[in-house]
Amino acid sequence: MIDHAEALQRLDAHYQAMPPVAAMRLRVVDYDGTHLRLAAPLAAHVNDKGCAFGGSLGSLLTLAAWGVLHLRLEDAGVDADIFVADSTLRFLAPLYDDLQATAQLAAASDWDGFLAALRNRGRGRIELLAQVPLAGGGIATEFRARYVAIARR
Amino acid sequence: MIDHAEALQRLDAHYQAMPPVAAMRLRVVDYDGTHLRLAAPLAAHVNDKGCAFGGSLGSLLTLAAWGVLHLRLEDAGVDADIFVADSTLRFLAPLYDDLQATAQLAAASDWDGFLAALRNRGRGRIELLAQVPLAGGGIATEFRARYVAIARR
Repeated sequence: MIDHAEALQRLDAHYQAMPPVAAMRLRVVDYDGTHLRLAAPLAAHVNDKGCAFGGSLGSLLTLAAWGVLHLRLEDAGVDADIFVADSTLRFLAPLYDDLQATAQLAAASDWDGFLAALRNRGRGRIELLAQVPLAGGGIATEFRARYVAIARR
Repeated sequence: MIDHAEALQRLDAHYQAMPPVAAMRLRVVDYDGTHLRLAAPLAAHVNDKGCAFGGSLGSLLTLAAWGVLHLRLEDAGVDADIFVADSTLRFLAPLYDDLQATAQLAAASDWDGFLAALRNRGRGRIELLAQVPLAGGGIATEFRARYVAIARR
């Protein structure tokens, strides 16, 4: 098992090295081995209606799901490039608070099968789920996406 | 018919007033009454692999589809707030060039029915389609989304 504190520092450095992500004022909050939580201030993501811009919510969710997959692969000792293949967003309620996103594997995802495909064929595909919660309970935005990992040789 | 040059200046000012959009270095390219084209430099949107970040592509596409719906409603003389309800992104190929996005109504969308719903019930829902082309032909990213418009009284 890797040290998660160091893994989160590396993940944060990875995010901040990307110009569009640096502009988001994103912060890595925590990771418990299955859930990764990111945050960003509303002020950097506010739209014309005073709530969070849908594109910003999509970016934060895309990064959270990418990040949890990256951390889990690191935990498993697999070195891979990770790409988002497709994603679906549902905007359920406007968010008037700072942004938070929590990402995890989708319930139906077969982690062991994904790892085996990566190790045996050099390539795997897996579904991730991420959500932006409302401050008072409930969900602002729901995200489902498939990511492809390609092993680095 | 409104003057599109002035409409595009107003649209650009609207975009630039949103902090997350100002950070994107977005540019309104043109509008022919049915298609709106936006652009942004790759340098502001590059990811860890040297190509365009998926979250940035999603934001540009969300803004392009929002923008063409805004312009068409303005053409029709309808004053409405526009919200994205849900969206689906397909990342078909990586983009190593500056970003462009073109948005239009989805082929199956019923524009007249949408306008009638907005005028009669104060609310309408319509599907938009947007794409990021590859420089050499073909499509980098495809976007479908439903937007809700609520008439301002």
